[in-house]
Amino acid sequence: MEELLNIGIIGLGGRGLNLLEVCVLPRKNIKVLAVCDLYEDRRLAAAESVVKAGQPRPLVCADYRQVLDQEIDAVLITTGWTPHIDLACEAMYAGKYVACEVGASYSIEDCWRLVRVHEDTGTHCMMLENCCYGRYELMVLNMVRQGLFGEVVHCQGGYRHDLRDEVAHGRENRHYRFNNYLHRNCENYPTHELGPIAQVLNINRGNRLLTLNSVSSKAAGLREYLVAEQGPNGKDAGLKFAQGDVVTTIIKCAHGETISLTLDTTLPRYYSRGFQVQGTRAMFCEDNRTLFLDGEHNKFEFRSRELWGNAETYLNRYEHPIWQEYLKAGIKGGHDGMDWLEFDAFFQAVIDNTPAPIDVYDMATWMSVSALSEASIAQAGAPVSFPDFTNGKWISRKPL
Amino acid sequence: MEELLNIGIIGLGGRGLNLLEVCVLPRKNIKVLAVCDLYEDRRLAAAESVVKAGQPRPLVCADYRQVLDQEIDAVLITTGWTPHIDLACEAMYAGKYVACEVGASYSIEDCWRLVRVHEDTGTHCMMLENCCYGRYELMVLNMVRQGLFGEVVHCQGGYRHDLRDEVAHGRENRHYRFNNYLHRNCENYPTHELGPIAQVLNINRGNRLLTLNSVSSKAAGLREYLVAEQGPNGKDAGLKFAQGDVVTTIIKCAHGETISLTLDTTLPRYYSRGFQVQGTRAMFCEDNRTLFLDGEHNKFEFRSRELWGNAETYLNRYEHPIWQEYLKAGIKGGHDGMDWLEFDAFFQAVIDNTPAPIDVYDMATWMSVSALSEASIAQAGAPVSFPDFTNGKWISRKPL
Repeated sequence: MEELLNIGIIGLGGRGLNLLEVCVLPRKNIKVLAVCDLYEDRRLAAAESVVKAGQPRPLVCADYRQVLDQEIDAVLITTGWTPHIDLACEAMYAGKYVACEVGASYSIEDCWRLVRVHEDTGTHCMMLENCCYGRYELMVLNMVRQGLFGEVVHCQGGYRHDLRDEVAHGRENRHYRFNNYLHRNCENYPTHELGPIAQVLNINRGNRLLTLNSVSSKAAGLREYLVAEQGPNGKDAGLKFAQGDVVTTIIKCAHGETISLTLDTTLPRYYSRGFQVQGTRAMFCEDNRTLFLDGEHNKFEFRSRELWGNAETYLNRYEHPIWQEYLKAGIKGGHDGMDWLEFDAFFQAVIDNTPAPIDVYDMATWMSVSALSEASIAQAGAPVSFPDFTNGKWISRKPL
Repeated sequence: MEELLNIGIIGLGGRGLNLLEVCVLPRKNIKVLAVCDLYEDRRLAAAESVVKAGQPRPLVCADYRQVLDQEIDAVLITTGWTPHIDLACEAMYAGKYVACEVGASYSIEDCWRLVRVHEDTGTHCMMLENCCYGRYELMVLNMVRQGLFGEVVHCQGGYRHDLRDEVAHGRENRHYRFNNYLHRNCENYPTHELGPIAQVLNINRGNRLLTLNSVSSKAAGLREYLVAEQGPNGKDAGLKFAQGDVVTTIIKCAHGETISLTLDTTLPRYYSRGFQVQGTRAMFCEDNRTLFLDGEHNKFEFRSRELWGNAETYLNRYEHPIWQEYLKAGIKGGHDGMDWLEFDAFFQAVIDNTPAPIDVYDMATWMSVSALSEASIAQAGAPVSFPDFTNGKWISRKPL
């Protein structure tokens, strides 16, 4: 991967700056020609980082169109989720290979737009779903591909992450989630868990998501958090958040598998993506890092807790090749390596000008969960159908 | 509790015989006057146990009406779940205080019948939901009642128990589940998890279950199990089971709480009831026995696994009074004490002739999940409404 690539970055809040510094600037073949953010402090900080890394000072701008006007091969979109699809489409029209951070959709039409612009322009777009590169997610995928789970029947996942501090102080901290939580009630962050599950189930590659049912709990966490902080007469104590604390979503797939997703971001808890895969021969559960193999483990052994954490002992045998190589080369990058690996995949796809491993069909399908769940929640969990964003191509598309 | 009680038992398969021996016969004030089962070997084994415990030989019969004709105060119904409601209603008509094992419903009308017969006769019926007496379930309930969870928002539970052996060999082993799995697709065993959750959420006592959505996975586990055992041409290899391997159910409550239930009985796994309670100030998760207290635990601490199993360290402080007393008196009975404690509660209610702590309204509500989930699954998870089996009395009924 020694070919030189020129890129630009749009969106340099906490996450964008972090990705730039940890996953982009250490690569000697990637030159950052432009950095863009609506906030001056953010874009200046990014320019500073680029210069510190030994590169010429990039173009620093507030208007993303100036980035797209540059002679760049690819553009990273790392803004808050609201403008993701607009920016991704404009960047594809401009002929730049796009990498786009994860997030929610607001409408199904917007998801279709991603697909159409890609098909019209022939330009590619990859969703930066880092959790598809998680170590245990990939170990399980590796085992599933080897048939060790038998027939996979049910998967679970969640974005179970206490974000009360970020969301409640969104206005002061310029965090985009605040307004979303105030106005919308949906599965607003489905891809961290759905991405790895979609790969296990070959979604859009021989299988597809058919229907979804979503039900939301009441919204109590943020209110109580703000009252505890500001007192019952505090300026935000009376805010009414539309977003329920816990949203549970069940998805049914074309081949009969079910997927259960949980959004759980405004109550106190430990972080978990609740990744769980169950087949006719094995199961994996993230919450206690247990790998249960039929015939090998006793179903009542759990009571003695002997299985907790045993998945680690299988890494030797079932580590995914991507991680084997990564560990051999020496750990780099953020989020335990996931971010580094997703950028490896992205830059390689740009150099080869091949479709991204997580392409517009995946991006549209995974993001559509937010808009669909909003509709289902509003109808007491009524079933809502997924569009087939591939228009039938899922039947013949091969698993990666 | 020294008052003498005479009882009869209907249904002496594995579970009934076990309850008789472990939870009934050790009590010196309970006399067993009649034992009934359709199978001769079962009823004879039970009579043997009664005699061995030093009691006179009981009436041994195949017709439950003979049991109801005896001069008994109470009757235990410990058959397979199919005749539960019929038997419970007949026993109430006969004026016997009923204890009935847990199970599924086939229709909503049947659940209503329990309520009507109780209201017509004034006779009581308790559902033997032993998990309501589980040690951690009661610790959490105790903490919830003390306000330590804040406002409870979301609960999860499951019957996650690999029953492939029992179900697949149901015909040879006279196990009633076989025919149910062959013909029905529903949440067929909801009460082990829903019972303790219903108590946490004060269901039928200030709160109620409003709607349910259920979605089922395909049925793959039993078929693969039978093929592995008998070969692809084995006598049962071609059986088509209607029951999906995993059924996910979401319930919405009158005060906005959500409950997620999982039936998961035909895939390899460790046993778990997946009990999870989340409030605005704390959460409990059974799968790693973690108690997370807001302000006390760090949300990222989980990564270091430091929290796994920490719930045990809180038993000293938050053990439920029922368990405190039980431990002081010395461990007795089956299923880690749960069974003993439920029979304590039952016999005390019979002696006092007071409503059972788990009464016909609870029994009808919890059992109705099976019939409602069958309807919802058949409609792609469409919302189905719970009847109000209390006809409005839930608004003023006080939590126990």
